[in-house]
Amino acid sequence: MSEHSKEFETLDPQDWEQSKALMHKMVDDAFNYVQNVRDRKIWQEMPKDVLNTFKTSLPQQPSNAGDVYKELHDNVLPYPMGNIHPRFWAWYMGSGTISGVMGDFWASILNPNLGGGNHAGHKVEEQVINWIKEIIEFPKSASGLLVSGGSMANYTALAVARNVKAGYDIRAEGLKENNLVFYGSTEIHSCNTKAVELLGLGTKGLRKIEINEDYTINIEALKTQIKEDKANGLQPICIIGTSGTVNTGAVDDLNAIADICEQENLWFHVDGAIGAIAMLSNTIKPQLKGIERADSVALDLHKWLHMPFEAGCVVIKDNAGHKNTFSLIPEYLEKNTRGLAAGENWFSEYGLQLSRRFRALKVWMSLKEHGSERFGRMITRNVDQAHYLGQLIAQNNLLELIAPIGMDIVCFRYNPGGLNLEDLNALNKEIKLQIEERSIALPGYTTLNGVYCIRVAISSHRVTYADFDEFVNSVLRIGKTLI
Amino acid sequence: MSEHSKEFETLDPQDWEQSKALMHKMVDDAFNYVQNVRDRKIWQEMPKDVLNTFKTSLPQQPSNAGDVYKELHDNVLPYPMGNIHPRFWAWYMGSGTISGVMGDFWASILNPNLGGGNHAGHKVEEQVINWIKEIIEFPKSASGLLVSGGSMANYTALAVARNVKAGYDIRAEGLKENNLVFYGSTEIHSCNTKAVELLGLGTKGLRKIEINEDYTINIEALKTQIKEDKANGLQPICIIGTSGTVNTGAVDDLNAIADICEQENLWFHVDGAIGAIAMLSNTIKPQLKGIERADSVALDLHKWLHMPFEAGCVVIKDNAGHKNTFSLIPEYLEKNTRGLAAGENWFSEYGLQLSRRFRALKVWMSLKEHGSERFGRMITRNVDQAHYLGQLIAQNNLLELIAPIGMDIVCFRYNPGGLNLEDLNALNKEIKLQIEERSIALPGYTTLNGVYCIRVAISSHRVTYADFDEFVNSVLRIGKTLI
Repeated sequence: MSEHSKEFETLDPQDWEQSKALMHKMVDDAFNYVQNVRDRKIWQEMPKDVLNTFKTSLPQQPSNAGDVYKELHDNVLPYPMGNIHPRFWAWYMGSGTISGVMGDFWASILNPNLGGGNHAGHKVEEQVINWIKEIIEFPKSASGLLVSGGSMANYTALAVARNVKAGYDIRAEGLKENNLVFYGSTEIHSCNTKAVELLGLGTKGLRKIEINEDYTINIEALKTQIKEDKANGLQPICIIGTSGTVNTGAVDDLNAIADICEQENLWFHVDGAIGAIAMLSNTIKPQLKGIERADSVALDLHKWLHMPFEAGCVVIKDNAGHKNTFSLIPEYLEKNTRGLAAGENWFSEYGLQLSRRFRALKVWMSLKEHGSERFGRMITRNVDQAHYLGQLIAQNNLLELIAPIGMDIVCFRYNPGGLNLEDLNALNKEIKLQIEERSIALPGYTTLNGVYCIRVAISSHRVTYADFDEFVNSVLRIGKTLI
Repeated sequence: MSEHSKEFETLDPQDWEQSKALMHKMVDDAFNYVQNVRDRKIWQEMPKDVLNTFKTSLPQQPSNAGDVYKELHDNVLPYPMGNIHPRFWAWYMGSGTISGVMGDFWASILNPNLGGGNHAGHKVEEQVINWIKEIIEFPKSASGLLVSGGSMANYTALAVARNVKAGYDIRAEGLKENNLVFYGSTEIHSCNTKAVELLGLGTKGLRKIEINEDYTINIEALKTQIKEDKANGLQPICIIGTSGTVNTGAVDDLNAIADICEQENLWFHVDGAIGAIAMLSNTIKPQLKGIERADSVALDLHKWLHMPFEAGCVVIKDNAGHKNTFSLIPEYLEKNTRGLAAGENWFSEYGLQLSRRFRALKVWMSLKEHGSERFGRMITRNVDQAHYLGQLIAQNNLLELIAPIGMDIVCFRYNPGGLNLEDLNALNKEIKLQIEERSIALPGYTTLNGVYCIRVAISSHRVTYADFDEFVNSVLRIGKTLI
């Protein structure tokens, strides 16, 4: 390479028109990929020769961008996770949307850093957070932050709860005593356990309270445990209510938890990763009563709002407590009264991240394009579909519902009778795997009181009622061949 | 809306061709936006009427996607942060690339969840992490994780250091004593302080050791502090070396730190958010000697690798210790031997996040397209440009270098003589703001020993030597008018 070309070499395309043409081709291919998703296999095993392509070492020399795309096209696109397919009902995920893709595209082009500063991206994120506050009926004075997802949203809220409720300057002094306790049900999401461990409290810092038959937290047991813990010199900090448990979609009695928190001066956090956004659904909203009394709520926007990954959100009523937990401004970030570095309340002062992607843009564009009511209708329809599937199960004596249908989650099994638990579990596991391997659908699974369940979490905006007819027929057909 | 249309309503475009046409228009506009970035203002203040558009409440009804794009076009695109412009030298950020945009676009289309599972995305991330290990000369057996950025990368490594080195089961039992200590220099990045606070150790759990004249950690002072702390019953856990401090680009003596860590059985972490990727540069690589001896390294790929936000990476030699800190597998995520849920070592077992964006794809596509050597040349050129700017400063007796040039960071001030510190600081602050407000360039600033500096962090792949001639001339011109 000559000295001259070295001086003007960049990472920009050497031929802009050629690069633009490639991007246009990608757009055509990508739209077809999404539009025809139903016709492709949900999931398929990668063959060995494809797997081997991912073992090559660091590329030192350049390649043609078109050739790189060919590798993506041949070796990545045919082997997706499957969650954009209408019949993906496994782990709780959104399906993505074209409007979300457009927002993400512009976020990558503009590429601002949402850590802070006086630029349009910051205003867009403020607005999106205000919209989320409207949805969960939080006051305008609450603080909020878009984060990577439910795990970080819960972590952020629990960190604030720890620091605000400890009763001493935990941020400066560290955990003076090893006695702080959080509470949630045995059905609480694992990310809350992780959070409490990382905050220094240890697994023992999260009390898991027994559940009722409907998988919601047992309020009396919760009260008893708090009383006992206080008597033993422990310091209760926070109760985590779940709106939409991951196993069965159960919603804890949020008002009852709010009452206890008021009486005991505890922080009330709602893990609403699955369910909080269902405030948009007329069907679910009444079940969420009490969420507006929470000190903090964690939401996932890449679940039932179908944003492309990642998009979570945490909203916290104690704005100052939130900022006091995370704000730390070094010299090189000191604010100005003018210019780019102007503006109060940078987002980096409200969470772990300093550099932050413009993830607000896809939410902003999607909510503007679709309007919140359409999202509400999509959620309501998923819930209706869950009950439709529930009816199909109830109507067939070879099928058995294992838990009450919570929100949009149906746990059931195939049970021809006469088999012991172990054999039934093995049978249902095999049915689930065959459904998946034959690319009929991609249901999830879980184990409830030792019972292996086929777990159908219906969050797709593309799924139809007919899909469940075919699914149930397939379960029956495969079940029959296996016994 | 009729019952029929309600049943088949989705969040997909109602008219796919219309939506595709809009995306094609966006591609044309976006490529022009990047290609012509030099001709637009780096940054400009948002007028009041634009600010007001961000105050409207939750949109309940749908809008035409084209109209939403018009809002983006009119109210967001003209008011960027500025970091994709060649003359943005403020906070340390990458400029983005078209290949990164393409990768991000497909990540949003495919929309897999990189939390785990047996699909191509997982293999792509494994490969990208292997490449990063190659770059920093880490063994293949090391574990790694792509994260949102340097803050999360450092947090993740420090959490593992805490758990591995505490000497008891801190994950289960919590912090039994309030006596764990981490070490770094006074120039350490603030995210490490945040991390240590959140891990429950408090601000006091991070000892800030004095620096040498070149802004690197004072090794003798470090040794003395460790000795003293041990004598006082504290438990040293980890030393954080910085490769590229944010103020001046200083690189700590990593081999000397590695020696201490070996002697004292401490965890050796390198915060390489700015500098570790400069292993690709022949100029910088020798300064980073010793990085290969670290237990963990944090890198940022949205800085000198120019990935669109977000892309950070943490690499950890103690794979098992890493996994033991974060792995937690609830029933609904139990692995299968077949199907989507097959595969060992899911990424969610190595960090806080369960749901994870396919951020590996942009890195994979960019490294394949450009090759690592081109990235190395871009880094080397930035370092050369820093020294070129240093020469321009040295040649002019109205300008004064305030710190040694570290990597690509130049701290200087305008000093016409005869002014006291306070007036000089105010003068330089005003020069910096006018440079920014006139959109000549967007330099950063910091304060070193009370001296306000104009801080030029040169990480753009688009900047040329001539940009610094014009910048220095502007500083001199504005300085002259102000005194």
